[in-house]
Parts: sequence; C-alpha cells; structure tokens
Amino acid sequence: MLFQNPTFLGAVASTLLLSTSFVQGVCLHNHGRNLQAGPGSVPISNFSYIGVTGPLGWAGLNTANVKCSTANVQSPINIEHDVVPLSKTHPQLSIPNVKSAEFENLGSTVEVMINGTTIFEGKTYSLKQYHFHTPAEHLIDAQFYPMEVHFVNIASDGSILVLAAIFELSLTGTNTNLLDPLSAPLLTITEPGSSTTTGPLSFSDITNFFNTVPLFKYTGSLTTPPCTDGVIFLVADTFLPISPKAFLEFKSVLKFNARYVQNAPGEENLIEVAAGQLPK
Amino acid sequence: MLFQNPTFLGAVASTLLLSTSFVQGVCLHNHGRNLQAGPGSVPISNFSYIGVTGPLGWAGLNTANVKCSTANVQSPINIEHDVVPLSKTHPQLSIPNVKSAEFENLGSTVEVMINGTTIFEGKTYSLKQYHFHTPAEHLIDAQFYPMEVHFVNIASDGSILVLAAIFELSLTGTNTNLLDPLSAPLLTITEPGSSTTTGPLSFSDITNFFNTVPLFKYTGSLTTPPCTDGVIFLVADTFLPISPKAFLEFKSVLKFNARYVQNAPGEENLIEVAAGQLPK
Repeated sequence: MLFQNPTFLGAVASTLLLSTSFVQGVCLHNHGRNLQAGPGSVPISNFSYIGVTGPLGWAGLNTANVKCSTANVQSPINIEHDVVPLSKTHPQLSIPNVKSAEFENLGSTVEVMINGTTIFEGKTYSLKQYHFHTPAEHLIDAQFYPMEVHFVNIASDGSILVLAAIFELSLTGTNTNLLDPLSAPLLTITEPGSSTTTGPLSFSDITNFFNTVPLFKYTGSLTTPPCTDGVIFLVADTFLPISPKAFLEFKSVLKFNARYVQNAPGEENLIEVAAGQLPK
Repeated sequence: MLFQNPTFLGAVASTLLLSTSFVQGVCLHNHGRNLQAGPGSVPISNFSYIGVTGPLGWAGLNTANVKCSTANVQSPINIEHDVVPLSKTHPQLSIPNVKSAEFENLGSTVEVMINGTTIFEGKTYSLKQYHFHTPAEHLIDAQFYPMEVHFVNIASDGSILVLAAIFELSLTGTNTNLLDPLSAPLLTITEPGSSTTTGPLSFSDITNFFNTVPLFKYTGSLTTPPCTDGVIFLVADTFLPISPKAFLEFKSVLKFNARYVQNAPGEENLIEVAAGQLPK
C-alpha cells in the first residue's frame, strides 16, 4: 500500500479506516494516489483533469508523481493497428457474480469494488475494482471514443496488469450489460466522495469478452498519478456498445477524465519535449 | 496574410495559387499555419493532435508558434458558468445562402468555405469559413461535449472574433440543420487534402442562433498554431443537437482534433507550469 501523503492521510484515517471500501480502494486502484477527505466515507483524488492540478501539473502535486512528466513509457497512447501488436495469449479473467457491490465516486472516476483473479502469462493477479474514463483514454488509429473501462489487476510482486475495453456509441441503443445495472446507482453518486451499493452484478459476459477477443498488448503506465510505469496493458480490439442514454449519464457524472495521449512508448515524455522548446 | 514558411509555400504555390479555395482558406482560417501539399488542391496542416507534432509540440514546429507554449491567454478553456460572463450584446452575423460551397479536409479539420459578415461591438468582421472539432474543445462546467463548430471572423485591422457553438448528443435523433447537408459530402473527403462541393446551404437558423442565444464572452487565442492571442471568443451557452449518426460520421473523419484545455485566462501557460516542475 503506497501513501504519498502520510501526514494528510493520517488526519483522515480515523474515519476512513473504518471503511472496508477505503481499504480495498487504496490498496489497489489508489496505488499511490494523493487522497483528500470526501463528504462521505470515500476518499477523493487530489488530482484533476483541468489546470494546474490537471495532467500537465500532476508532477507538481507530489514528488512521487515525477514519472508523469519524465518517464518515457506512459499511457494512454494512440494505438495504431499496424504498430501495436496483439497479445499472443489471452488472460484468464474470473470474477464471481455478486449480489451487490460498493460503487464510489472518487472525483477522478467512478468505480465498482469487486474481487476477481486474472492469470496472464503464468502470473496470477488480483482484481479489486473497475472504473471508467470519458472520453476513452486510448485513441485507436488516431480516433477517439466515448468511454473506456479499466480493470486494474495487481500481482503479489506489485506488477500491474490493466484490462481495458473501449466503448463505441451504438446507433441501435444497444448497451453493454456491464453498464446496465450501474445506470440507476450512478445517478445517486454524482457528488465526489459519495458512494452507494449496486444491485446484483453478473460478470460472465465481460470475462468471456476479455478471455476471447483480440487484445492489443503494450507496456505503459497508470494513466493517473503517480503514473507508475511498467504496467502491462491489454486493450480490446473489439468495441463494446454504449447507448446514447448511458453515454450521457456517465458523462454527466465523470464530466471529463481522460489524460492526454502520451508519446509512443520509449519516446521522450511530451512534457520534456515541450519544455525543451521553450525560449531560452 | 501570414505565411510562416515562405520557402516551402513558394515550392507548392504554383499549383495551390490556382485554387480559389486555397486563397480564401489561407487568408483567414489558415492565419499563419504551416502548410503542406495535399493530394488535391487543398493544403494540409503540418500540425496534428498526437505526439511531437501534437499540442505539446506545436511551438517546436515553427518559431512563430511560440505563443502556444508561452502565452498566458490561450484557448480552449473550461467555461464555468459562475466565472465566465455572458456577452452584454449580441453579434449581428449575416451569411447569404449559397447554392453550393467548397468543403475541404485540411487534415486538422474539415471546413466549409463561405462568405459572411459579423458586426460586434461596433466592429465589422469578415467570415470566410466554419470548421469543426471533435470532441468539443471548450469544456462547460468541466464537462466535455461531442463536437464544436467555429465561425472564424477577421476584421480589417487583423483582430479575430470566433463564434463557437457546442453540440450535445441528441437522444431523439435530432440533428442541427447546419450538419444535415454536410453528411453526404463529408464522407467523400475522408482523406486529408481532399475537397468536394456541397449542395445548397441555408444559414438562417445558425445566424439566428448566434444573434439571439446567450453567449459566453472571453478573450483567448486561436486553438491551432500559431495560437495567436487576443482572440475574442463568443461561445453559445445553448447546445446544438447532434444525432448519434452524425456524431459518428464526423468523428470517423475528424478522428480527434481538440487541443487540451488551457489554464484560465491570465494564468501561466500550462507548458511553462509543467516545465517548472521538472527535476533540476
């Protein structure tokens, strides 16, 4: 468990540590994120997507975020079909169905707390949550898409595997059933720091999706502070449908939470590129 | 007429100067943009929205683009209702209906070449084209929207006035009639550098729109190189509807052409902020 700001966290720990969802959240998805006290039991991320607390200012929020502005392997990227290879093997993702799950608004995203396991290339990862970005963070062949979901998996050695799927708007109103049971509870957690409980969630379709569709594979980073690099990304090369209604609902709550597209993996961090072009 | 790269332009001028649309385009919307020869008669912008030729690298493309990384007044911005004031007066926009118009794909946008006039705060501006960005460049109350149109007006003294309208996805399939006559020709100019001719275009609805709806007013910049500052923006505080079908059509051609949201007007350029946070 990484805390970037132990002093501040200490101040809110007395209430937060009573919350199981907090413990789950920080241990996995909040891997090193700065946190602030929310109005309820849910910690709010201290970074944003606008201005000096936005992606160009993330490194200034905490020295632990230095990779956001200096690492040469960062996510998201523009995934070109003729550049980024498909994974030769599939993950084995398993998520037990649940009768209900914690659903939290962290300010920077909304996420569903669940337990699962992913086996990929011989390594076993734990899955604790999935969350959403709108618009999608990755571009595909230079095009943007309305939304993206990230299933963040962490192995016992700390290595991170993100299973990502990108949504495209459906003209027929079709909506991926991953989203359907979230629509009603989503509208009760519009306030950052708020949380609610979902109804029953079934994961057979989404696990079957990741376990069978072609997946781009590349090594990138967390797309949020501290921008930890060395993260394996498996991004589905098949879109999930999102209905116009669901898109507007998610957008009204998430508002805008996509990091700008980073330089190609291995190329100089774009903040260093931009800094090098400033007048002397 | 500003040319950033006269040598290069000289090399392609023999073919390009035969094109009336080129002359219209460069004189107004291509105000200082670097240009490259396209496959047809349309010059292609040399900047992009990805990697080192993307927004973080624009200043490095040409010394004339220095304001992209250093000016303290840049567009687009996040428009907060309680921060950015509404204009106290309306523009008087007038665009004669036409039987057809040139419709061009510049690589960086698609735009319709027309002639119009805008009177605002006692000054008369000429309008020569309108073009599109997807997603919308301005955020409204931190939320993103699917598309934005810019009507770029220039006065005889060189001052620039942009009339901007933001589209929101329609759940009923309603589509602004500004877009309807562009759908078919749009799909014939998917290639950067290509152009076509539209059918009849009527502007009574869009001129009535800008002449009557509430408009945010702020001073910003061109959202493309050379990021000229001192540009007056009037951004409609009323969304135009875009159907899911039209959104997908425009997105398939424009792909992604929104500059990241800049710091609030008057605040330090975010590239300078980011550069100042790099390790010494």
